[in-house]
Amino acid sequence: MKQVAIIFSGCGVFDGAEIHESVLTMLHLESHGITYKCFAPNIDQHHVINHLTGEEQAQKRNVLTEAARIARGDIQDLALLNPDEFAALVIPGGFGVAKNLSDFAFKGAESQVLETVKTACQKFNTQQKPIAYLCIAPALIGHIHKPGTLATIGTDPDTAAALTALGAEHVNCEVSDIVVDEQQKVISTPAYMLASSISEASSGIEKAIARLNTFIS
Amino acid sequence: MKQVAIIFSGCGVFDGAEIHESVLTMLHLESHGITYKCFAPNIDQHHVINHLTGEEQAQKRNVLTEAARIARGDIQDLALLNPDEFAALVIPGGFGVAKNLSDFAFKGAESQVLETVKTACQKFNTQQKPIAYLCIAPALIGHIHKPGTLATIGTDPDTAAALTALGAEHVNCEVSDIVVDEQQKVISTPAYMLASSISEASSGIEKAIARLNTFIS
Repeated sequence: MKQVAIIFSGCGVFDGAEIHESVLTMLHLESHGITYKCFAPNIDQHHVINHLTGEEQAQKRNVLTEAARIARGDIQDLALLNPDEFAALVIPGGFGVAKNLSDFAFKGAESQVLETVKTACQKFNTQQKPIAYLCIAPALIGHIHKPGTLATIGTDPDTAAALTALGAEHVNCEVSDIVVDEQQKVISTPAYMLASSISEASSGIEKAIARLNTFIS
Repeated sequence: MKQVAIIFSGCGVFDGAEIHESVLTMLHLESHGITYKCFAPNIDQHHVINHLTGEEQAQKRNVLTEAARIARGDIQDLALLNPDEFAALVIPGGFGVAKNLSDFAFKGAESQVLETVKTACQKFNTQQKPIAYLCIAPALIGHIHKPGTLATIGTDPDTAAALTALGAEHVNCEVSDIVVDEQQKVISTPAYMLASSISEASSGIEKAIARLNTFIS
């Protein structure tokens, strides 16, 4: 049985993991007969955004605890992720990737990645296991993979420039398509960086998971 | 263009709307070319459950504000829902239906339904528009539809007995199937009342939305 790890960055597009992308990841993995286990870092969120108004809320929330909502409680501390047990890794998007797993939302080309995330991803890479980065998650690629690794966040020139400055090679990509670095086994798709509907997001994620599956079959 | 309303009860299976069911509802509606608008009541949640530990958290959260996470901010106060603008209604499950939209989780056969929810559903029913109730949401049916309306929450005998006591007629149902009351145009499916995976939940929800579509086509 093939098993894949998923790293969530909270629960909600503006301060955590993008919920549709997270659920679609689980759905499309299962449709390929792939099981999954969910992980998230046990840290406070950078902040809490009221998703109705877009304003910051005076509240503290923990990334792992909130991500447990998407995982229906079946989730573990990212510190416990052992890449030996998994064939591949998927990181859905949402601002949580750029606010909790890294500080890309605030520092762009000067950003850093959370050490537990970097370590986990690098272990998958060292073991030549594929990683799919969705939406804004490719902002992590420059920190983890070798310089010039192909990556996409869609077509936004400023975000693309920041990815390139961080060491990746950005390739423009339609919402329904994927970019693959064959040597690094890195897959990326724009998802809600470009999607205007859940079916658009689903089309690219479906393709990304199908490609991931060919790497591990 | 066919447009359907969705009522969310928060964001997270243990104190709000079940996230997978909510996202799958949106996905399957779109796959039938149906657009949707999201609504939730502007009230405090009954409580906040830490989805990692299952324990109650000393925090207040608002049902509409949390549901906005699933809707990516594109959601309105349920008080503004005008059934004239929609062809049908869907209510995904999660404990939020039984804790926020009603008190079924605490009072079972003695439960009451939030007035704004009851009013909205009854207007759809009066206009002979179909309503799909997923998972535990059929606990609302006895309060809204005529006595003896067919409904399912799967196979749990105690929950089924409470539905019957509230006025519905419970029919046992597999996770991949639906129960339809043709006269009332009421569709129900067990989803995570029985599902042990997201694909199982998806199979019944897909069938429920396909049946909903035949009512409005």
